[in-house]
Amino acid sequence: MSLTRVIRLATPALLGSLLLASAAEAQQSRGEAAVEYRQSLYEVLAWNFGPMGAMAQGKTPYNAAEFSRRAERVAMIAPLLTEAFPAESQSVKDTHLKPEAWTNRADFDAKLKDLIDRSAALAAVAKGGDFEKSKAAFFETANTCKSCHDKYKVKD
Amino acid sequence: MSLTRVIRLATPALLGSLLLASAAEAQQSRGEAAVEYRQSLYEVLAWNFGPMGAMAQGKTPYNAAEFSRRAERVAMIAPLLTEAFPAESQSVKDTHLKPEAWTNRADFDAKLKDLIDRSAALAAVAKGGDFEKSKAAFFETANTCKSCHDKYKVKD
Repeated sequence: MSLTRVIRLATPALLGSLLLASAAEAQQSRGEAAVEYRQSLYEVLAWNFGPMGAMAQGKTPYNAAEFSRRAERVAMIAPLLTEAFPAESQSVKDTHLKPEAWTNRADFDAKLKDLIDRSAALAAVAKGGDFEKSKAAFFETANTCKSCHDKYKVKD
Repeated sequence: MSLTRVIRLATPALLGSLLLASAAEAQQSRGEAAVEYRQSLYEVLAWNFGPMGAMAQGKTPYNAAEFSRRAERVAMIAPLLTEAFPAESQSVKDTHLKPEAWTNRADFDAKLKDLIDRSAALAAVAKGGDFEKSKAAFFETANTCKSCHDKYKVKD
């Protein structure tokens, strides 16, 4: 397709319809959008964490390629969370984030950095295909999740 | 932390609490979880697509590094969608997916492949830092979104 045709097709109206998942979301504040973004990131993390957890616990057979692929995804998604807690999202009510995350922001950010660092290490180890090492790196990553949830996530 | 301690901490209960975002989700079927996964992936795509769209339309100044970073993210997220439309999700009612996606599955999958291919091309072009080329590649990617939405997404 020619550039001219592409640009003609890509009107602001088209982009608007692409960039907003629903009409309701057009009314979202930047803070609400950030909450939805981070919740989405956690969903994507959990989906990919799940099969690794099942393998690490011996519930499903270890598949080195799948374990590594999912570890790669977690390692690439985790850093996106650094953008998902902007100041504008502090006033949003519909969230599982405890207010302490804002008053202890440096600690919260350090815990997020732990997740990022551990998941990067997990991806690197998983690539090697050694089950015991991968399992250990997985649990170290899982513990960074737990450490933050215990302190900053509202219990369901 | 020692491996022994990590494994002791990482009980099934701990993993369960990590892997499920809420108690409600523990009741989710695999199909419902897949719908939530793909909706989350689209959210993550849209969040990162947005600032590229604003730059492509001249609403915000072109920042080559940011444009490229977001294009990379889109290129890495798009392929994850291939796992997000399993057969078990066909019976889920709360979705924006038209039934035609299931009856025209080969066409739907081809459109998804277009998104994956175009977003990979976009990331490659964006790395070069040329605004006009990046803009063209962005709109080509946006058009793959539109092409699929027009046919397979329920209008809001």
